[in-house]
Amino acid sequence: MRVAFLGLGQMGSPMARRLVSAGHEVAVWNRSREKAREIEGARAEDTPADAVRGAEVVMTMLADDAAAQEVALGADGFAAAMAEGAVHASMSTISPALSRRLAEEHARRGQGYVAAPVFGRPEAAEGGKLRVLAAGPKEAVKRCLPLFDAVAQQTFDLGEDPPAANVVKLCGNFIIASMIETLGEVFALGRKSGVAPEALLDVLGTALLSGPILAGYAKTIAESRYEPAGFKLRLGLKDVRLVLATADAAEVPMPVASALHDRYLAGVAQGLGDLDWSGIARLAAESAGLDG
Amino acid sequence: MRVAFLGLGQMGSPMARRLVSAGHEVAVWNRSREKAREIEGARAEDTPADAVRGAEVVMTMLADDAAAQEVALGADGFAAAMAEGAVHASMSTISPALSRRLAEEHARRGQGYVAAPVFGRPEAAEGGKLRVLAAGPKEAVKRCLPLFDAVAQQTFDLGEDPPAANVVKLCGNFIIASMIETLGEVFALGRKSGVAPEALLDVLGTALLSGPILAGYAKTIAESRYEPAGFKLRLGLKDVRLVLATADAAEVPMPVASALHDRYLAGVAQGLGDLDWSGIARLAAESAGLDG
Amino acid sequence: MRVAFLGLGQMGSPMARRLVSAGHEVAVWNRSREKAREIEGARAEDTPADAVRGAEVVMTMLADDAAAQEVALGADGFAAAMAEGAVHASMSTISPALSRRLAEEHARRGQGYVAAPVFGRPEAAEGGKLRVLAAGPKEAVKRCLPLFDAVAQQTFDLGEDPPAANVVKLCGNFIIASMIETLGEVFALGRKSGVAPEALLDVLGTALLSGPILAGYAKTIAESRYEPAGFKLRLGLKDVRLVLATADAAEVPMPVASALHDRYLAGVAQGLGDLDWSGIARLAAESAGLDG
Amino acid sequence: MRVAFLGLGQMGSPMARRLVSAGHEVAVWNRSREKAREIEGARAEDTPADAVRGAEVVMTMLADDAAAQEVALGADGFAAAMAEGAVHASMSTISPALSRRLAEEHARRGQGYVAAPVFGRPEAAEGGKLRVLAAGPKEAVKRCLPLFDAVAQQTFDLGEDPPAANVVKLCGNFIIASMIETLGEVFALGRKSGVAPEALLDVLGTALLSGPILAGYAKTIAESRYEPAGFKLRLGLKDVRLVLATADAAEVPMPVASALHDRYLAGVAQGLGDLDWSGIARLAAESAGLDG
Repeated sequence: MRVAFLGLGQMGSPMARRLVSAGHEVAVWNRSREKAREIEGARAEDTPADAVRGAEVVMTMLADDAAAQEVALGADGFAAAMAEGAVHASMSTISPALSRRLAEEHARRGQGYVAAPVFGRPEAAEGGKLRVLAAGPKEAVKRCLPLFDAVAQQTFDLGEDPPAANVVKLCGNFIIASMIETLGEVFALGRKSGVAPEALLDVLGTALLSGPILAGYAKTIAESRYEPAGFKLRLGLKDVRLVLATADAAEVPMPVASALHDRYLAGVAQGLGDLDWSGIARLAAESAGLDG
Repeated sequence: MRVAFLGLGQMGSPMARRLVSAGHEVAVWNRSREKAREIEGARAEDTPADAVRGAEVVMTMLADDAAAQEVALGADGFAAAMAEGAVHASMSTISPALSRRLAEEHARRGQGYVAAPVFGRPEAAEGGKLRVLAAGPKEAVKRCLPLFDAVAQQTFDLGEDPPAANVVKLCGNFIIASMIETLGEVFALGRKSGVAPEALLDVLGTALLSGPILAGYAKTIAESRYEPAGFKLRLGLKDVRLVLATADAAEVPMPVASALHDRYLAGVAQGLGDLDWSGIARLAAESAGLDG
Repeated sequence: MRVAFLGLGQMGSPMARRLVSAGHEVAVWNRSREKAREIEGARAEDTPADAVRGAEVVMTMLADDAAAQEVALGADGFAAAMAEGAVHASMSTISPALSRRLAEEHARRGQGYVAAPVFGRPEAAEGGKLRVLAAGPKEAVKRCLPLFDAVAQQTFDLGEDPPAANVVKLCGNFIIASMIETLGEVFALGRKSGVAPEALLDVLGTALLSGPILAGYAKTIAESRYEPAGFKLRLGLKDVRLVLATADAAEVPMPVASALHDRYLAGVAQGLGDLDWSGIARLAAESAGLDG
Repeated sequence: MRVAFLGLGQMGSPMARRLVSAGHEVAVWNRSREKAREIEGARAEDTPADAVRGAEVVMTMLADDAAAQEVALGADGFAAAMAEGAVHASMSTISPALSRRLAEEHARRGQGYVAAPVFGRPEAAEGGKLRVLAAGPKEAVKRCLPLFDAVAQQTFDLGEDPPAANVVKLCGNFIIASMIETLGEVFALGRKSGVAPEALLDVLGTALLSGPILAGYAKTIAESRYEPAGFKLRLGLKDVRLVLATADAAEVPMPVASALHDRYLAGVAQGLGDLDWSGIARLAAESAGLDG
């Protein structure tokens, strides 16, 4: 397939290389031109517009909303140069709002748009082991699948509305960031309590973080099924109290633990103490004006 | 081995049964006596003191600190009735502070004490699939190992200081609770953004929650190795901003995301923007008076 | 003076009336025209451009950034119709960023710009009892003073850089919002602890909220003078602990109290326990990359 | 009156001196004896028990719960030595829970108990300008009034249940701590936005912190009267958004502002946007299981 690939950073370069290896005809562009010349077997172009001319699919992997908007829709943006019927697959982490706008602008020009952000680090991109979250019109997504297959081990179908894929990607990054902060508090507490980081890592990595436990809770929450309780919400409050008491004695500020205390306490105060402890998810939903 | 098992709730009953099945001589006690009579093959006793007499190991699985303290050290507590040289393995989730006190009281009486809280739900207890976190004097832990093997798939050795095991257990429960809250916010955001819970679950369960990603971050933080960056802290801030902007537009309050924003913003403000985004763990450590 | 007043909501209408009463020649405009006709003695105009023609000062009191930007700088915005040398006094609560942009656009046209947001509710506007926070070039501010005097009991001079006034106004509203949330938590705690709201109000209103205490702390923080301690930071931690323990027992979630606990705990963990308890302000500054 | 005064720290010493000056017969005790000898005109005693013998009222001003409990109820505590019919006025900031216990212990001995914590710093104690929050049986409080008059400008009557006074005192300290944190965030934002601390202080001290504004909001919340709105909750959300956007651009983490954003967003999401912006207090109440 004739493909244009715009944005050759840590993620984009290995992705473009994999497209070349898979036998596609690839034109590349990058703001600093040296990066473009380093992709062997691809045609380096000077402007986004030059790169996309004649392409059936345009893939973008740009730094942020500002870059994505300028390169696609700015004064010299590529949208105007894309062929009617061509498809833009936007693979970087951008806002659902910009994704919506890109979908509209491309539609107005008779072009397709697929939101296709990815999970995975540069090594995964090199090995073709990314995971693609794809959302857009069925025909447009179908056109892109062979290209996604060249860079990813799996493509998730998130329906026909592009921003949905961006929301899911942001949810994923939020979960990782939350776990990072949580682990930051955990290792600080461990260190001040005389627990060696390696010992803590050994237990958490084996028994908790890589097994089915966390995914199990995700399932419970996705299904809003908080009864019967596997472990009661009021016992969750008890344990969060123990965490905070231990942290208080060791002088370790734990802002996430404090937020959890407020949430579990609200759950018990509102009469939900006999639900499963995952039932605090109901409070998050209700605070957003949803039914629990 | 002659074992006493005190506390026959949802976790304790299946654990006691497995000890019987494994061929140990088991005496049981529970506050409400019917539960004790239901453990076939075990000797039901009327008081904790009666149950522990003659036992080589006393296992407890009691509701909370108050119960554990009263049953062990109260006016009719079993500590006074335990044989010199016998070992108390305390398997419920209690505070490190009470664990320290139990260790001292038993030592004063020439008895051993092992903190041995567990990960796993009732089903895991029935199947002998718990994970035990054990800490205490080597000889005492060694004595308990055959019993732990009867109820668990794995026993972690957390050293000779009992409270360490309790700290690790609390850290584990804190991580689960934090993930529950995080997922609660995530599914609320998904619902208000038009993403079906099943689609979100499919992606998160497969691509994030059950793979090696989260454990990888735990390793980075355990080793305080934030350079070179796989994904820069300043990009982490960018993504948390996108999460909050999306949530703001959808009217979804996300307290954990707000806390993350404060942390990432502090990281960038303090000149750490080029670290890996897991580097906010350094801020958690520093706020506790540790070096980062 | 010839004045144009744009934006006749709850605040704008009484302000425009006071300008008329003070003897100024006032042209008014409002998106819904009836409001404009209700200002007796003023000339109602159909467009912002018509209203500002010939005016020496243009005052705006518009709903938000979007409205302020469109009315001033949009396709039919008034900036193009203002006379060279005229001054725009922007009195609504807008962002410092928009204030900076307005300053630049007016300067480019040879016009003056003063940021002049106000404290005070509609009743204060009617009585001429507002407080104006003014920032802008000296000559431009001087031109506006007689107009400010017509609506306000006091005008603060915040220097020559307009966004400074908007920052101070936002700080003020943040303080009020924070006190509202704090009081919300306080009255919930009071109610669940058997303290009548009227009794609580009687004490807090008299002894704390209207006296010099809070302003005294503002002075300490403005001067970063945390030694000698009037009340030590470690005692502050003690009291926050008592608040949280009381709230925990009464089942009252208090998110601000939780945040305070984290802050005071960090202060003590970092060796600041002997500073005055206002010394946690140093941590807020440091987290922003400032010296404490 | 014959009075015993126990605890001669920064607050206790000037209070004891004022009792002497007012003509009372005062016995004093302090853990470190030199402090006791420095109170001219008072009788220094070696133990709490010696000090209270014969006293009609025993006043205590001790460091914390642990000290208060030990001095009153410990092995050598003074409760056993107090006369039947004598009254204990506990003036330090202790927990409502300990206050309840002291009330019970004294009642059991036929003694009176009044919780009487104070607002005011050492200078206020010297000048007799404290404010006393008194709660206890009418007769007992009445007995103490002449003594309170010697140290305070005002005594609030908080009813017959002693812990109520301790709750109110803790609420007061929580409000001050919250304002300290809020001001810490405010001055950090000001500094990073180019606003001089003195200019900010000038405005805030004059226009906001010492006037009737904050007390007015306390009244609204005490009466749960959120309609009609003086300033709508949805406008409050708008302003909190502007605060956070300004802080984000200036790289100033503001945890309290983040918490406020979550609260206001929840208010709007739940359909309360047209209430007065003090209406978020309803959410605090509801999260505690109260009706709003």
